[in-house]
Amino acid sequence: MSSVSIPPPECMLRPLEVPVRYLFGPGPSNVPPRVLAAGGKPIIGHLHPEMYEIMNDIKKGIQYAFQTENNMTISMSGSGHAAMECAVFNIVEPGESVLIAVNGIWGERVSEIAERMGANVHRLVKAPGGCYTNKEIEQAIEKHKPVLFFLAHGESSAGLCHPLIFKLKYVHIKAHFSQPYILIVWPHLEQLQFLWTNKVEIDILYTGSQKALNAPPGTAPISFNDRACNKMFNRKTKPVSYVFDMTHLSDYWGCNGSPTRGYHHTGPVSGFFALRESLAILAERGLEESWRKHKEVAAYLYKGLEDLGLKLFIPDKLRLPSVTTISIPEGYEWREMLTYIMKNHQMEMTGGLGPSVGMV
Amino acid sequence: MSSVSIPPPECMLRPLEVPVRYLFGPGPSNVPPRVLAAGGKPIIGHLHPEMYEIMNDIKKGIQYAFQTENNMTISMSGSGHAAMECAVFNIVEPGESVLIAVNGIWGERVSEIAERMGANVHRLVKAPGGCYTNKEIEQAIEKHKPVLFFLAHGESSAGLCHPLIFKLKYVHIKAHFSQPYILIVWPHLEQLQFLWTNKVEIDILYTGSQKALNAPPGTAPISFNDRACNKMFNRKTKPVSYVFDMTHLSDYWGCNGSPTRGYHHTGPVSGFFALRESLAILAERGLEESWRKHKEVAAYLYKGLEDLGLKLFIPDKLRLPSVTTISIPEGYEWREMLTYIMKNHQMEMTGGLGPSVGMV
Repeated sequence: MSSVSIPPPECMLRPLEVPVRYLFGPGPSNVPPRVLAAGGKPIIGHLHPEMYEIMNDIKKGIQYAFQTENNMTISMSGSGHAAMECAVFNIVEPGESVLIAVNGIWGERVSEIAERMGANVHRLVKAPGGCYTNKEIEQAIEKHKPVLFFLAHGESSAGLCHPLIFKLKYVHIKAHFSQPYILIVWPHLEQLQFLWTNKVEIDILYTGSQKALNAPPGTAPISFNDRACNKMFNRKTKPVSYVFDMTHLSDYWGCNGSPTRGYHHTGPVSGFFALRESLAILAERGLEESWRKHKEVAAYLYKGLEDLGLKLFIPDKLRLPSVTTISIPEGYEWREMLTYIMKNHQMEMTGGLGPSVGMV
Repeated sequence: MSSVSIPPPECMLRPLEVPVRYLFGPGPSNVPPRVLAAGGKPIIGHLHPEMYEIMNDIKKGIQYAFQTENNMTISMSGSGHAAMECAVFNIVEPGESVLIAVNGIWGERVSEIAERMGANVHRLVKAPGGCYTNKEIEQAIEKHKPVLFFLAHGESSAGLCHPLIFKLKYVHIKAHFSQPYILIVWPHLEQLQFLWTNKVEIDILYTGSQKALNAPPGTAPISFNDRACNKMFNRKTKPVSYVFDMTHLSDYWGCNGSPTRGYHHTGPVSGFFALRESLAILAERGLEESWRKHKEVAAYLYKGLEDLGLKLFIPDKLRLPSVTTISIPEGYEWREMLTYIMKNHQMEMTGGLGPSVGMV
């Protein structure tokens, strides 16, 4: 037997050290002990019947969180970005028109993803946190006739919860033009309340496990309605990614009506345990109570920050209850402040992301 | 506040139940308590300095496991399939020639991935577990002049450890033709011994965390040498996937020489904790001891199986020490046997995958 030429690295002979930290950024947040314990359970095989049961539970838990009966509801084996690519890759074929509202980092990212796979990308650009009127959206859809329209409902990089009140216009648009698909990035649970209250038709919805679900990052719930399924399962070309192909993922998740499930990839077993537990906590507590608590805590935080003389970046009615953005006080360097807070108080706060860097 | 229309699902009000099982399939295998405990630790932010340290440790741990000094060594935030797509997406541009040895499921999967992204795919097809001669490989490379040559070194679906003894021929080929890149799927640690002993030049190497590393699935080590980096960072087109783009991933992993790291996606924090712990166990035990133990245990298993009158699918010298495939005894239905073993002994064994279904 030959000996190895590269010796064991010294750093790996030291135990893993993880500081205890208050996570007050846009996610991940501190994970409840119950969810950590679930993620630390001995694993089973990704294709065992009990694993399928756990995946079925996760599906039902996501349907509850998303308040949807969409059959095509699964969790990605990856981060929210994986869900973003999955949505674009499966819905859009090369050369098709896509319309993207860019008012923060998520619109930028979706544009980049759609461009790479060969879509014909049209952008509606606003400053970070800017809102779109119904008329602006309607005119752009009339002009570009997109198969997919992306709007970040919860634009976490700006702290904006975009009002979605274009229901009637949207239905009108649907009747007139080649089906536009609405895709919403949705990083925080309680925002959905606005959508369901206004009966906004959303075709694709996704989030990351580390957002309001309070699970570790690594899984990402995503849901497609029948209209989205109709588009993605009647393509002329295969999606460019095998890993993100919903034909295979729906089979793996038992959503395609087949009595057996196919091997596609090896799902993150521990990550699914943790995701199930976080969805169980939500089911036990109830969505209404979760929304109420988030709003109550947010209001308390707003008051405290304003009492300190700080200015919030987003006007009262448009704020995400779960991500609060503070305008950087004049004369201060944001990176220095964040480093000070982390070092002296073990508290994570974060700066802007993408276009909002240096603003909040 | 509106009330919700979909009630909490009843299944989510039951606690998570996970059976204790002996995992004797090709992976995941049973995870050591130390690794489970690391994965269950309270999380920190994906962009905290301590997280970067943990990622640096993981990089060194993978370099040790892979016995490489490749700077471009990271873990994917996804399964082995994510690493497979990452390799193909980053190395190959649409229209470029790719040569794939298909003698089991992994060649099939890579072919599918390469076809979807527009590569000019050439297959060298053999029955599951079939081996290629130097001459066959050399002739096919001369004919197709691929930018990437894929060979599954550890073809787990057949239990084959493909001999890689074409070193001299390969160097010869390299001098004559436009650079062919070797990409090896490597699902089991101890196989690498053969490669390093024979000084085979491998440009890209990847595995899944749930293979011989004994971590839960969800992360996937991958390593590119300078030649592979030279190809992938001098492309004319951007890789089709933003999520798998090595320009961004190398920045996130601190491999691109930049003093700061960019936000690309949110890594699976708990998954990285677990991966680090599994690599630490390997560093403590040492590769040689790990290889020795695997071989010893495999030899014991071979003898026991043969004493029972069972026939091993792969001849002695070509077997993967870590995945043993048994020919299905005449008159038995493999699914029935596996179900019986799982039900009565809580032991997972698995059948063939892809082309080897019904054979082993």
